[in-house]
Amino acid sequence: MKAKKAQARPPSLRPRFRITCGKEIAFGPGKADLLDLISRTGSIGEAASRMDMSYMRAWSLVREMNRCFRQPVVVSARGGREHGGAELTETGCRVLELYRRMEESGRRAAQPDWRALQKLLRA
Amino acid sequence: MKAKKAQARPPSLRPRFRITCGKEIAFGPGKADLLDLISRTGSIGEAASRMDMSYMRAWSLVREMNRCFRQPVVVSARGGREHGGAELTETGCRVLELYRRMEESGRRAAQPDWRALQKLLRA
Repeated sequence: MKAKKAQARPPSLRPRFRITCGKEIAFGPGKADLLDLISRTGSIGEAASRMDMSYMRAWSLVREMNRCFRQPVVVSARGGREHGGAELTETGCRVLELYRRMEESGRRAAQPDWRALQKLLRA
Repeated sequence: MKAKKAQARPPSLRPRFRITCGKEIAFGPGKADLLDLISRTGSIGEAASRMDMSYMRAWSLVREMNRCFRQPVVVSARGGREHGGAELTETGCRVLELYRRMEESGRRAAQPDWRALQKLLRA
């Protein structure tokens, strides 16, 4: 009981909303981060590399999203073969915005129980 | 536009709160399901098999939780070697209860944005 508390990172909580659409995962935390990075870098390849994933993997996640939504979420601005520029469509921006808001509302709503739960965790 | 709508499963949303504690994942949707099943079956082995996971895997998840919380969340009622009975401690019950409430509040709080997002998904 008298042991010094290690200055470890405090426990953290992240709501990871998963949206399934039939057997596909239409959207989730990984896809949200990918859209974020595509929007910031203008490139699927650059976004993939910052997430430490292959271009093919990122592209397959983008295609999965494009299949699940009525409108594509990402378009290639300068065309495909050369891993050219990419950007979010209006739908893509809206999906990401709604998802981030869901995360924020979810996190906020969970706070009272999260505070109680934290007391049960080791320091 | 006149195509018949396939009677597919409707899109679904699940908040998967992940609680990290340093480098460990103290709790999350899989661990919650595992505790649920241990509580219902009274057996780590039976819970594991219903989740289609090995006994060793389930046991290692239980140990990870037991390390992260101040008190163990699961105790073996009739002792280990024989994969004997197991039950949730008071802490285990409380953690599971708080987690389920977080999920429920999170889901509820996300509803308005989720409804908007659903309209962007294919039928």
